[in-house]
Amino acid sequence: MTLCILFGGASWEHEISIVSAITLKNVLKQENLLFIFLDEEHRFYHIQSHQMQADFFAQKKHKSQKPLHLDRRGFFTSGFFGKNPLEFDILLNLVHGADGEDGTLAGLLDFYHIPYIGPRVEASVLSFNKLYTKIFAKERGIPTLPFVHLTQHQEQKIPLDFPLIIKPARLGSSIGISIAKDPQSLNFALDQAFEYDSSVLVEPFFSGIKEYNLAGCKIQGDFVFSLIEEPGKKEFLDFEDKYLDFSRDSKIENANLSAQNVTKMQKHFEALYENCFEGALIRCDFFIHEDKIYINEINPIPGSMANYLFEDFEKTLISLCTSLPKKKPIFVDYQYIKKIQKAK
Amino acid sequence: MTLCILFGGASWEHEISIVSAITLKNVLKQENLLFIFLDEEHRFYHIQSHQMQADFFAQKKHKSQKPLHLDRRGFFTSGFFGKNPLEFDILLNLVHGADGEDGTLAGLLDFYHIPYIGPRVEASVLSFNKLYTKIFAKERGIPTLPFVHLTQHQEQKIPLDFPLIIKPARLGSSIGISIAKDPQSLNFALDQAFEYDSSVLVEPFFSGIKEYNLAGCKIQGDFVFSLIEEPGKKEFLDFEDKYLDFSRDSKIENANLSAQNVTKMQKHFEALYENCFEGALIRCDFFIHEDKIYINEINPIPGSMANYLFEDFEKTLISLCTSLPKKKPIFVDYQYIKKIQKAK
Repeated sequence: MTLCILFGGASWEHEISIVSAITLKNVLKQENLLFIFLDEEHRFYHIQSHQMQADFFAQKKHKSQKPLHLDRRGFFTSGFFGKNPLEFDILLNLVHGADGEDGTLAGLLDFYHIPYIGPRVEASVLSFNKLYTKIFAKERGIPTLPFVHLTQHQEQKIPLDFPLIIKPARLGSSIGISIAKDPQSLNFALDQAFEYDSSVLVEPFFSGIKEYNLAGCKIQGDFVFSLIEEPGKKEFLDFEDKYLDFSRDSKIENANLSAQNVTKMQKHFEALYENCFEGALIRCDFFIHEDKIYINEINPIPGSMANYLFEDFEKTLISLCTSLPKKKPIFVDYQYIKKIQKAK
Repeated sequence: MTLCILFGGASWEHEISIVSAITLKNVLKQENLLFIFLDEEHRFYHIQSHQMQADFFAQKKHKSQKPLHLDRRGFFTSGFFGKNPLEFDILLNLVHGADGEDGTLAGLLDFYHIPYIGPRVEASVLSFNKLYTKIFAKERGIPTLPFVHLTQHQEQKIPLDFPLIIKPARLGSSIGISIAKDPQSLNFALDQAFEYDSSVLVEPFFSGIKEYNLAGCKIQGDFVFSLIEEPGKKEFLDFEDKYLDFSRDSKIENANLSAQNVTKMQKHFEALYENCFEGALIRCDFFIHEDKIYINEINPIPGSMANYLFEDFEKTLISLCTSLPKKKPIFVDYQYIKKIQKAK
């Protein structure tokens, strides 16, 4: 089987997507891999395996490659004798942040009938926008921390106690996120967050809150789960920490959790995934606060696909390829239009 | 200005999109119009103005046209001497239902930097899926009728009194919708709805409930509203009634509503539209039940753009073209990647 990894994108997470792709190149040893790079101007390039190095992109060497064009059922180069398809079986959407996780690429790939691993349009919107993740989780009965949603130029009443954590609604990888310990730093934090998005979430910040990451997917009707990790001990991971996170490929220790809490977390994962995230391998980040489990965020395209959380990542990813959702075909018979014609 | 109307699509509402486009051709008299037809296999065709007749599509005559290819900043025909763009200023997304309203085309048009009137990806998902419309409206403080959400193969407990109305979550134009007066007809109605979608909503059905349609959009920061119509008196409009609805072009009478209720409906409209539907001309369908206003559904691409509701539709639509949302550009400077290189 040939897997094609799509990475890059017009996103603040463009560079970490490159790191993610290079990491997966090293992790996925047994499969035929192809790489398509999406630059920030929305041009696609086929990148050779030996070119998959950070330096290649930093020096913009991709620009000397022939661009690819997306069309029905594939990516193509156009040559003197017509169009040549780039042959692969399944595409892996590894574009983090905007384009990849906001539903844009999902729309493109669905439209052109490219089979892919990744969130579909609905799943993208519900996980990319932290506000919608909150209300989606609530509808599915999964607790979230309390929050206040703010939009720019709006009066700001925040009935929550300091310290607070301020997050742009639609950015991942800790970009634009900060902690405010008093009203003065809150104003600064809000200004910073509104630099990135017109929609911002404010939550209580619990220093030392326990965080747990669980990845998984549904394959042939059954859930496959990763180990559960309790990540780093810093106050919160900033962009540079997270950046290193995207290049991870060494295995982790299972977190110290009761069997009961493991089961509960997996049930929460299932409730969030079912009938929405099919076709994607996602990572759910949970909190435990005062013995209660909360969903913090859903990463529909986790850094380096959370490979380090899985006992057998390669097998999981390749099995998922056999379980991608299919749209029901639409039949158009023009019977209504013919009826109108007759009635005239 | 040249406006390009995109219609058709791989959707159960393919044919009503054709009718909608033909209607707009007759309504928009002063503008230069172009037409792009999207067939059910996702091929684009440039249709000449004189070919814009139902019969042309029913006989599949579009297949003899040269297909167009979507690429960065335009639609192109490819000829012997390279690519020729189809020149227009703004595109109007008039693809009703799947493709047009589910975020797929929004993703494509955003990606290729085509300026367009229509819902963006988020707005599409939140209005196309009736479940998400409910939870979105709730978050914005707008009342909805109570409902039960069902998925296939799930135990079905419905704590609501008969009669009930059963709706597939992701289909418009009354397709798959039916009313159940008793448990037996409920089973039949659910089977029918699940034919179209794996996700179904059940609501109480109030015979003779008052329905009101209000269309509008935000232009240069101000809301422009249509008249408010109280549509037909039938139990509910079925697909054929709605179909005729898509060809409407004669003006309506303003509904008999108190000034207070008109203002309230407009405020509800604004609360739903702000920071989500920018760039779209939408129609909100409200109920009034026991003196309270409820949002029933949001049509982000209403039939024939609800032209008949506006005092000066053409002016409204053309003004909206000056007020389309723009994405902030992303700058990629590869500073993180360069830092990694240095650290090595």
